[in-house]
Amino acid sequence: MHQINVCFTPVQFPSYPHEGCNAVAIDVLRATSSICTAFMNGAERVIPVSTIEELKTYVGRYIIAAERDGVKLDFADIGNSPKYFTRERVAGKTIAYSTTNGTHTINTAAQCRRVAVGSYLNLSAVCRWLEAGDSDVFLLCAGWKGRFNLEDAVFAGAVAQRLTDTGKFTTVCDSALAAMDLWSLAKADLMGYIKKAAQNERLRKINAADTIPYCHTIDLTDIVPVYSEGIIMND
Amino acid sequence: MHQINVCFTPVQFPSYPHEGCNAVAIDVLRATSSICTAFMNGAERVIPVSTIEELKTYVGRYIIAAERDGVKLDFADIGNSPKYFTRERVAGKTIAYSTTNGTHTINTAAQCRRVAVGSYLNLSAVCRWLEAGDSDVFLLCAGWKGRFNLEDAVFAGAVAQRLTDTGKFTTVCDSALAAMDLWSLAKADLMGYIKKAAQNERLRKINAADTIPYCHTIDLTDIVPVYSEGIIMND
Repeated sequence: MHQINVCFTPVQFPSYPHEGCNAVAIDVLRATSSICTAFMNGAERVIPVSTIEELKTYVGRYIIAAERDGVKLDFADIGNSPKYFTRERVAGKTIAYSTTNGTHTINTAAQCRRVAVGSYLNLSAVCRWLEAGDSDVFLLCAGWKGRFNLEDAVFAGAVAQRLTDTGKFTTVCDSALAAMDLWSLAKADLMGYIKKAAQNERLRKINAADTIPYCHTIDLTDIVPVYSEGIIMND
Repeated sequence: MHQINVCFTPVQFPSYPHEGCNAVAIDVLRATSSICTAFMNGAERVIPVSTIEELKTYVGRYIIAAERDGVKLDFADIGNSPKYFTRERVAGKTIAYSTTNGTHTINTAAQCRRVAVGSYLNLSAVCRWLEAGDSDVFLLCAGWKGRFNLEDAVFAGAVAQRLTDTGKFTTVCDSALAAMDLWSLAKADLMGYIKKAAQNERLRKINAADTIPYCHTIDLTDIVPVYSEGIIMND
């Protein structure tokens, strides 16, 4: 029986056992949903970049997708919304990608064995990837600048619940148990439940709330973007 | 309308707004339950001590209550269970107190305006104290070594729910919303719900699980221990 751990923010990552785990990086609104969308539309590679300085070195070579606090950076080609990652823009391309919370989360999760990029768009595919991985599982939520957030916790609960339902996974991790309980409250009306999340209001203020229903659409793709040595590719 | 923030672990404290807030330090199993019990039994002062080095300077002057990972330290008079804080032992006395997570939580919360020590034992009294405080509220959970824990989150949810029910408090904090949802699932059968918490198993292993029902007993006292300038006293 494999163990599931859920960590609500990267700042707590060092406190959790993660050695030998297969990890999922989770930033439902919006980084990991955007990355899944990029690969759905034929992107070749995504490079998650934590710092603006490093990002600038990629200007002219790759598509630059970047935001801070929801707003596109000046020198970026596109911001951090799935709707920008169109087939016309990203097919066959490499994207250098940096967001407030999402890319740092992916780079933190890189300390685990293998790291997948998870979102509702590829929920079932990610669960199958974890099941096939035959290891302990680490679900790392982006949260928001060190704070817990609802949308990532609920998604982590969805994954944890599906894995325990297989009978091959279990958990003694309080955050996994809490996440599953939140998922149990949210699943019947996911959009209704997630309305109260703080990120909803943040996205509304920058006129980006239209992406929220899309980012909560389950199983649009079987693609599992996987991070390895600084690069995310279609597994 | 005052705001409620809930922070699940001290490591996340810098990420949350806390200036001008009245805070509650929460370590249900067992530090804040033990401190409430100490004052119920007539203790005069409790000094929360983060480091073992500082604690040693109090030997011979005060009662030393201290544990690490649930086990009483060699040079301590008593460990960290409410049952040790008997009237015979603590009435009129000063206690220097250090635990794995609880005392660090209190000392972190000290960055807020005023800090109360909260547990189920004084739930209603703490809520009245916060209501009378007429300020924003910060509920700081001890968690466990940087990890989220269920028992503190559920208690924070109980406090947050009571405060919002007064109509004088509201929240846009995702962790407060999650805590209230967990409380809504737990409240009908608190002991049944909390059985799955990791701390249950930790306490069972050191033969200390008998304290769990006591630490989940609501409103045994009206006392609100309050921290000020390094010392906790009956408010």
